[in-house]
Amino acid sequence: MTDSPAFVSESESAALVDDDLALAAAHEAFLATADGSTFPVVIGSSSSPGTRFTLKSGSAGDLVGVKIGSFWPDNTELPRHSSTIVLLDPATGRLRAVVEAAAANAYRTAAADALAVRALAREDSRTLTVIGTGHQALHEVRAVSRVRPVERVLVVGRRADAARAFAASVTAVTGLPAEPVDARTGVAAADVLVTVTTAREPLFDASWVRPGTHISAMGTDGPGKQELPVEIYGRARLFCDLPEQSRAIGEFQHAPAAEPVALGAVLSGAARGRTSPEDVTVFDSSGFALQDLTLAAALLHRRATTPGDSE
Amino acid sequence: MTDSPAFVSESESAALVDDDLALAAAHEAFLATADGSTFPVVIGSSSSPGTRFTLKSGSAGDLVGVKIGSFWPDNTELPRHSSTIVLLDPATGRLRAVVEAAAANAYRTAAADALAVRALAREDSRTLTVIGTGHQALHEVRAVSRVRPVERVLVVGRRADAARAFAASVTAVTGLPAEPVDARTGVAAADVLVTVTTAREPLFDASWVRPGTHISAMGTDGPGKQELPVEIYGRARLFCDLPEQSRAIGEFQHAPAAEPVALGAVLSGAARGRTSPEDVTVFDSSGFALQDLTLAAALLHRRATTPGDSE
Repeated sequence: MTDSPAFVSESESAALVDDDLALAAAHEAFLATADGSTFPVVIGSSSSPGTRFTLKSGSAGDLVGVKIGSFWPDNTELPRHSSTIVLLDPATGRLRAVVEAAAANAYRTAAADALAVRALAREDSRTLTVIGTGHQALHEVRAVSRVRPVERVLVVGRRADAARAFAASVTAVTGLPAEPVDARTGVAAADVLVTVTTAREPLFDASWVRPGTHISAMGTDGPGKQELPVEIYGRARLFCDLPEQSRAIGEFQHAPAAEPVALGAVLSGAARGRTSPEDVTVFDSSGFALQDLTLAAALLHRRATTPGDSE
Repeated sequence: MTDSPAFVSESESAALVDDDLALAAAHEAFLATADGSTFPVVIGSSSSPGTRFTLKSGSAGDLVGVKIGSFWPDNTELPRHSSTIVLLDPATGRLRAVVEAAAANAYRTAAADALAVRALAREDSRTLTVIGTGHQALHEVRAVSRVRPVERVLVVGRRADAARAFAASVTAVTGLPAEPVDARTGVAAADVLVTVTTAREPLFDASWVRPGTHISAMGTDGPGKQELPVEIYGRARLFCDLPEQSRAIGEFQHAPAAEPVALGAVLSGAARGRTSPEDVTVFDSSGFALQDLTLAAALLHRRATTPGDSE
């Protein structure tokens, strides 16, 4: 053995992560989609019905490894989602690091959204509408409101009490005014519209979307899931993280003829993003391993360069 | 967080593993194939050409997790193969344990062979022939010679010097006489024939195989690989670890109509093994996650119950 593998516990990674770290890691990951590799996603389960784990693996530059995401629906004391990132040593193939990253994973996903909004939404985006009132939705609101001059947040939820509670959380976390609205009102008023649900059918009517709106569809990551109405595609410019995966398990599974542009290509200057204030832009995130690998590397780097007693 | 995840280093697992532990873990794994689940195998790589990692995941009973195997062909100081086993907590989905298991992996693979030999080879098997002279081949000889009254070992290798050196290692490790022979001599004399190569075409002629021989094909674990002549299948009883996988990436990819019996079914009494001293039996191993999960659990159990200072 040469170097011992590093281990970053859940409590350590939760203390180390923040929006800046996640955004920088996401930026690196999206740029790496041009040259890096991602391998087929595995969806497995334990012996207990309803549990699910996913394996997302990839490599780019000196990063190679796998993220093990898990969803245990019956967890009550602990979050239902967990995440463990395993990095291999690029020089030897041996274990380099294990990073528990359940809390950090929420930042990582929201950072992809923020990156897309920063690249694609109008600079004067002031109204942010979010459809979905779960844990991840709050992360999305926080991350997006950091990259645009958001002045108010509109919340669309199926349950009125959940939407009210979520709006209160938004204000508590961001200081922004937030209010529950119906879907039509929220969509029509949005400069930026974020969907972050487990929906299996469209959440709104395409005709409600105003010119100039940016839409980030964060929820769809498996067969049968759907958040957006397909009618929007004919009048929108389409972007995603990984085109092939997006057509397989992302939003564009419902528009197989769509040819979404990789966000990484926009970030590198290889492709155009928004071309006018009237464009409707759509970004579909289904999530890819390089986001996890760059996140783990950033957490390890921050730990190594942070003074203190974190090992 | 509740319990912290356990971590077993390479040096610890190498010190903890032995043939008995590996054989018991393999027995448990093969029995679990009846009820457990294995998920699609992922084959990935780093940015460096020629590197390869594989993800094998599964679940059975209270075990759920993934084995990350890696092959870095340019390693000189370190072994080219590494293995890391990640177990999730069956109750919560969170990280339960990480076990580095490069050395232990060789025991795990040889244990499957020994299990097949113990179940399928004639009890009076005295001549063991091995085709292949690599690191894993020595593990196979050692493990197999523990379960049958082997009196001599015949070694078939492409290079005479490697075969001589390997025969000397066999004698050093097992105390058994060992000698290099040509393939025809070795195959014709074998009571148990083990192939453990990276071959992509048959290693011998089916007509050389005597009635009563048991053959363990350990090498084939990917498309295009092949060790056995397909002509043997018409006169042999066929067994393997996982029938579907064996037809996809194992030896039976070259005999798609074959209907090999799962070794686990023989071990549980649900299927017959050898029916007469004249049977030729073939066992194909392509390797499956449950072997890794039971191995990791056995290593954790032994560490927890071994007096001493191993943490």
